Amino acid sequence: MMAAAMYTHSLQSLKVYPGGTFFSRREYCTTSLKKNTSCLVVAGIPKLRKDLFVASSEVDILLDNVKWDDKGLAVAIAQNVDTGAILMQGFVNRDALATTISSRKATFYSRSRSELWTKGETSMNFINIHDIFLDCDRDSIIYLGKPDGPTCHTGAETCYYTSVFDFLKNPQVEERKMSLTTLYSLESTISQRKAELSGPQNEKLSWTKRLLIDNKLLCSKIREEADELCRTLEENEDKSRTASEMADVLYHAMVLLALKGVKAEEVFQVLRHRFSQSGIEEKKSRSRAQ
Amino acid sequence: MMAAAMYTHSLQSLKVYPGGTFFSRREYCTTSLKKNTSCLVVAGIPKLRKDLFVASSEVDILLDNVKWDDKGLAVAIAQNVDTGAILMQGFVNRDALATTISSRKATFYSRSRSELWTKGETSMNFINIHDIFLDCDRDSIIYLGKPDGPTCHTGAETCYYTSVFDFLKNPQVEERKMSLTTLYSLESTISQRKAELSGPQNEKLSWTKRLLIDNKLLCSKIREEADELCRTLEENEDKSRTASEMADVLYHAMVLLALKGVKAEEVFQVLRHRFSQSGIEEKKSRSRAQ
Repeated sequence: MMAAAMYTHSLQSLKVYPGGTFFSRREYCTTSLKKNTSCLVVAGIPKLRKDLFVASSEVDILLDNVKWDDKGLAVAIAQNVDTGAILMQGFVNRDALATTISSRKATFYSRSRSELWTKGETSMNFINIHDIFLDCDRDSIIYLGKPDGPTCHTGAETCYYTSVFDFLKNPQVEERKMSLTTLYSLESTISQRKAELSGPQNEKLSWTKRLLIDNKLLCSKIREEADELCRTLEENEDKSRTASEMADVLYHAMVLLALKGVKAEEVFQVLRHRFSQSGIEEKKSRSRAQ
Repeated sequence: MMAAAMYTHSLQSLKVYPGGTFFSRREYCTTSLKKNTSCLVVAGIPKLRKDLFVASSEVDILLDNVKWDDKGLAVAIAQNVDTGAILMQGFVNRDALATTISSRKATFYSRSRSELWTKGETSMNFINIHDIFLDCDRDSIIYLGKPDGPTCHTGAETCYYTSVFDFLKNPQVEERKMSLTTLYSLESTISQRKAELSGPQNEKLSWTKRLLIDNKLLCSKIREEADELCRTLEENEDKSRTASEMADVLYHAMVLLALKGVKAEEVFQVLRHRFSQSGIEEKKSRSRAQ
């Protein structure tokens, strides 16, 4: 961070967004100790975190490295750092990427409105950036971040809830089925079984439902599966046995999480704060900002 | 599936791909019982799975629903169904999406070569489609699938291994750091600690390293943490306590997985085959195909 070595002044203007709300639009022009000088535009960010400011000369080098298309755009995909869920996809130009780097709020370029927009500027559901990745061709970008709330303007967690294969089975039915990877698909199924328990039970209860209504059974299974996982190490069993026992531990523990109303995402957030570099950086930057 | 109600004939031609290899290119023209008739192009697929054939009239309705851009393209993002990793991003036109639907191999439209290409047609590392999702604007697509091997042409698991913030810290250093979500970031850290154990140990061992060299300690911790997780339910403790104990179970279990050389992805694969709808469908289609 070269913030201490930079002279920063801000120009502030007001801008009307489509929703009719007023947002401040700041331009931070920086003069670093290096010769290269340029401006980063920060749009619609309630509070600018100065500790996250990056020297503009390095940003310029990076922006020069991106392979922009004939319209000066690249694809940007916002992904939840804890769950891996693809939240939304948009396009970025140089200013949008520079703004995301400096503000750490996912910012895009609207092709229809021909202007920058920061996700969350109207909904307050910002996507807080932990890291940004370029692909091997340098024309596609991942915004790896933590969303403050649902990303989709419809209120859905992500914008991807139309399954093509469901549509092909029945184009008339428009039932929402989120795009979920394996763990979250399992979480969703368990949550559904839990919800079904409040209705009439006409058939033989499924194993998941039996676990959901019997804490003693559930806890005995979790302890038993953890023990079996350990024994695959202690008794030098096959790798496939370890994978299988770990799957058992996870499934039964996920039932307990559902009973307690805890999401897998919350568990990963705990893990990130404890172990990951970005967690450490986040803590540091938070204590600096406070 | 309307395959039984359709008359299918194939036209086969040969095509030279940039790698110099010959691939068959088939065009399947279908006449369903409905009036709507059209062709689906299936490029570079070694074996066509007829059980996955979808009535073309429904596909046409779907394709009409996609909001294609001024070049007739939409963004397609390939995501690993088990890990959530974003594997690659490309563009699709009508034919590319239709081909992916019929072949269940992720297929894109190359803007530079102006032709369809199926990921894996030269490397054999296909991305096997489990589901496809459209976003709320219907101009962005997720290919949710299982890769046969590394997706990137460089041999990397995914195409996203250039961290913008690492680049900004030091533009000269080009160290590969994959874009990893929380669980896989933890998995990578544990794996690194395991690798470091083969070198000289000059400092006080980290907790992870102590667990890695002491099976008895590791297993006692896994059993203890599983017990503590259960007690958050049995003793009606706070939700935050449950999340914290589950994080402990996961972390210690991940150390055991590292010791056994088992990836989290393998565990999720087991879970998917056991529980998810796509797993059930996959099993069914495999038994039909055999």
